[in-house]
Amino acid sequence: MIQSFIKKGSFQDSVSLMLISKKLSNLEEVDEVSVMMGTPANKSLLNATGFWSDTFNDATPNDICVAIKTHDDSTNVIALISDQLEDALKNIAQQQQGGTKLLKARRYASATEKLPDANLILISIAGEYAAELADQALDDNKNIMIFSDNVSVDDEVRLKTKADKKDLIVMGPDCGTAIIAGAPLAFANVIPKGNIGVIGASGTGIQEVISQIALLNQGITQAIGLGGRDLSEEVGGISALTALKMLAADESTQVITFISKPPAENVRKKVIAAMKQINKPIVALFLASKIDQPQEDNIYFANTLDEAARLACLLAKVEATACQLPTVAGKTISGLYTGGTLAAEVAMLLAKALDLAVSHSHDKGIMLDQNGHKIIDLGDDFYTVGRPHPMIDPSIREEEIAQLGQQPAVGVVLMDLVIGYGANADPAESVISGFSRACAARSADNPLIAIVTVTGSEQDPQSRHQQIEALKSANIIVMDNLPEAVLLAKRLITAGQASTPVRSYPLLNHISVINAGLRSFAEDLQASNIPVVQYQWAPIAGGNKKLAAILKKLN
Amino acid sequence: MIQSFIKKGSFQDSVSLMLISKKLSNLEEVDEVSVMMGTPANKSLLNATGFWSDTFNDATPNDICVAIKTHDDSTNVIALISDQLEDALKNIAQQQQGGTKLLKARRYASATEKLPDANLILISIAGEYAAELADQALDDNKNIMIFSDNVSVDDEVRLKTKADKKDLIVMGPDCGTAIIAGAPLAFANVIPKGNIGVIGASGTGIQEVISQIALLNQGITQAIGLGGRDLSEEVGGISALTALKMLAADESTQVITFISKPPAENVRKKVIAAMKQINKPIVALFLASKIDQPQEDNIYFANTLDEAARLACLLAKVEATACQLPTVAGKTISGLYTGGTLAAEVAMLLAKALDLAVSHSHDKGIMLDQNGHKIIDLGDDFYTVGRPHPMIDPSIREEEIAQLGQQPAVGVVLMDLVIGYGANADPAESVISGFSRACAARSADNPLIAIVTVTGSEQDPQSRHQQIEALKSANIIVMDNLPEAVLLAKRLITAGQASTPVRSYPLLNHISVINAGLRSFAEDLQASNIPVVQYQWAPIAGGNKKLAAILKKLN
Repeated sequence: MIQSFIKKGSFQDSVSLMLISKKLSNLEEVDEVSVMMGTPANKSLLNATGFWSDTFNDATPNDICVAIKTHDDSTNVIALISDQLEDALKNIAQQQQGGTKLLKARRYASATEKLPDANLILISIAGEYAAELADQALDDNKNIMIFSDNVSVDDEVRLKTKADKKDLIVMGPDCGTAIIAGAPLAFANVIPKGNIGVIGASGTGIQEVISQIALLNQGITQAIGLGGRDLSEEVGGISALTALKMLAADESTQVITFISKPPAENVRKKVIAAMKQINKPIVALFLASKIDQPQEDNIYFANTLDEAARLACLLAKVEATACQLPTVAGKTISGLYTGGTLAAEVAMLLAKALDLAVSHSHDKGIMLDQNGHKIIDLGDDFYTVGRPHPMIDPSIREEEIAQLGQQPAVGVVLMDLVIGYGANADPAESVISGFSRACAARSADNPLIAIVTVTGSEQDPQSRHQQIEALKSANIIVMDNLPEAVLLAKRLITAGQASTPVRSYPLLNHISVINAGLRSFAEDLQASNIPVVQYQWAPIAGGNKKLAAILKKLN
Repeated sequence: MIQSFIKKGSFQDSVSLMLISKKLSNLEEVDEVSVMMGTPANKSLLNATGFWSDTFNDATPNDICVAIKTHDDSTNVIALISDQLEDALKNIAQQQQGGTKLLKARRYASATEKLPDANLILISIAGEYAAELADQALDDNKNIMIFSDNVSVDDEVRLKTKADKKDLIVMGPDCGTAIIAGAPLAFANVIPKGNIGVIGASGTGIQEVISQIALLNQGITQAIGLGGRDLSEEVGGISALTALKMLAADESTQVITFISKPPAENVRKKVIAAMKQINKPIVALFLASKIDQPQEDNIYFANTLDEAARLACLLAKVEATACQLPTVAGKTISGLYTGGTLAAEVAMLLAKALDLAVSHSHDKGIMLDQNGHKIIDLGDDFYTVGRPHPMIDPSIREEEIAQLGQQPAVGVVLMDLVIGYGANADPAESVISGFSRACAARSADNPLIAIVTVTGSEQDPQSRHQQIEALKSANIIVMDNLPEAVLLAKRLITAGQASTPVRSYPLLNHISVINAGLRSFAEDLQASNIPVVQYQWAPIAGGNKKLAAILKKLN
């Protein structure tokens, strides 16, 4: 049987009440206890889950409904639970007073007065009230994050359309995760700063990708949530398109990673078209969709969350390196390899990247020779007949490197450096010497950039890191593997990221938050030194919609 | 003009003479100097490169031919170069005496007497003599590595066929790299010990893959070279097939990585068929070939050297972990996830791995439910209506985990653990508690294995590593990402690696080397504490083949 009572005029957030329900359910005297605010949605839920009591007819959204399933029909149970509830509520109040001191406001107007530069409202109140509050905040030119679910698609479309006209963003509804301008919004992780911007229609999808990025020792700029429905036919990706514009404009974002379920077909087309307009590399993961081709212009498609993170980190490294180097846009790439297989792989990768054909004859060790780009295997018989292999005696390559000084069209030289037993005792010396000579023959406005990969281990007689340090101190770029080296070379000879003036989004540089709903979200923000005011929202006029509407008109 | 002389009866290796040539060429008085042993091949080369002099007609393979290009026609040049050559040869002799003390032998028979357990001969003498020496060593039941090039295909086929009948291997000709039983053979790197065995028909290909493996903090068992022609139509992959048998039999090798250019079609079929007979995962990289499907039974195809290394390390980690766990072969997998996207990705990966279909209705959060395998999203509305999300309150999942104790068919439980702001303060505690209860309900012969991935960073309030440490100390396996977790789960429910008795290859456990040719190879072996004798090979009967044949018969 169900015993029940109402505690009038005491608004609490849903998570707190759920935790209280769980604690009370553990008492021996009861089977199960459900404690909820008396909102229409909660009343339906109490009914559907067998906790209904007619007592609740009188409850307003400001009243706590308590339903007790028990085999003990004494009224003592109500007294017991009532006492326990009071204790629990007192505990919460004490914790809140004893814990972080939060800036608080009971009305929206006073919240904005207390935090005049607030530019985002984080909404985690009951879903049926979320849209109205979001609408109010949009009128006030705030960006919106709606953590709440149970917001209708119609409301979502209306809010997002309105925001779009004002260059604002609505993240959500049902948006669990965002990190904006360093602020952890709802379920968020502490991730190092980096140059990867993340957009996601999936909360744990964002969390896993940024966690993997951190594991790979890289970091993020922003993580913008969309809510799971944003890329549906009905919503049309309004926030996805805004988020792309925001990260396109965000100078510290050099690579964009986009995560969602497969979008509706026409939305996919819109999103892909928007991505192609952005002069930054973009990793796209449309979860569980089949990939036709791994790359389409600046868009790299991933199959899994960790692959998305790995691709993003690769591109991020390339962009971060490229932006510190002089421009050689429009120049050609020359590869001078001592390892035949390394030359062959670089030729293959470069051919794919620049849409060229590899050479199949391998005449004179030439693995690729097209449009001025040239990859040579200097270990080919042509160079080694009667001479030691260039891994042993690197002088022939040193001459070839030096010669590039006289070839002004060449902007990038790609090289390997093989160490280990049998190899030259200090191959870096020869690479550095050849490169210095080449650079000396160039004018300042026609630089040559050298990119090297090192084959060999730390324990090799030459020591991997010592060779790398020597190369780096001679301004030679060292990449970890051949695909990285080729991607960087391609990036350097193509035009860089746009610096054309674009609309700016101040939110990405400075955030100040009104938090309506779960208090812990405000505490997390405050712990991260983000300006925040806790808006102690409660349903207007006790949740009576008619009365609320009249009151609104009176304001 | 060319001036020339012969230095009689002084055999030196080709690399030493090449370095001497280079040094002498730097002298002001000359244009270029070529110093070579008077072998037939070298004589052709001197002719082809414009260094011929009729003086050389009398030179034997034991004589040094010196050709000097110069504009100075004084005979002084010959005296000068002759003096310099003598100095250089003296230097080499002194270095050899002053350097490492090597065990030395002038005849093959004495080499084997000095190192009775020698089981491999490393041959880097002039190519035209390499096959004969290899043949002799095969008769003597030695394994062979031929570094030399210029060995005919006919000789290669003959030697490899002969070796095959004796369960021996011929690596090469033109095999630049091998690492056997810890011995660096020719161009080799110092790589940590691990469980990945490498087979390669490309020297720098092997070197780059093992270097990348070391960068990923893993290691190798062996690296077996084949020579670039082994997988051609003519040679038919004889050594490739032997190498596969060797690593199949090698207990410490749990994953095999195979690198070559695309083999001839019928050789490819043979090699792939042999790979499928091996109950170990194999990564195959057929350089620059198009991959039709990324996986075929136990074979994983890679596109690049670093991808081959990454795949090998992933599989190696899975195998190394699996072999330390009790067997749950034939059991099912249960996934209990709090993150919806994580559950969806795991369902997709598991469906692909086990050839199952994912569930599209997602009824009650069920993402996959087939053949007893089941992946559930416990964040689905079905579980969270009126309850906090399991990321906040993990008790509902704790119950589900504990319930697995009563489901004896389930062998593996896959889980996520999401930390960060908003999430539970110690989610590991709940996972551990549920898992302990499940295990307590199981008998020792019906274990349950838990595999968890952690979403979140080290800087999160809960600390990634602290959560991981807690899980590990409760015997819960923690993997870095979802593909790793799924691969391990699949591996655990399928039969393990064969322990059926196979032919053993003692070479892989203990190696003892006769080095014929480049002295530095012997020095490198000795520096690595590998038993080695330097066989100071010189052409028999001064290279006179007829006389040599007569002498051989007299022996």
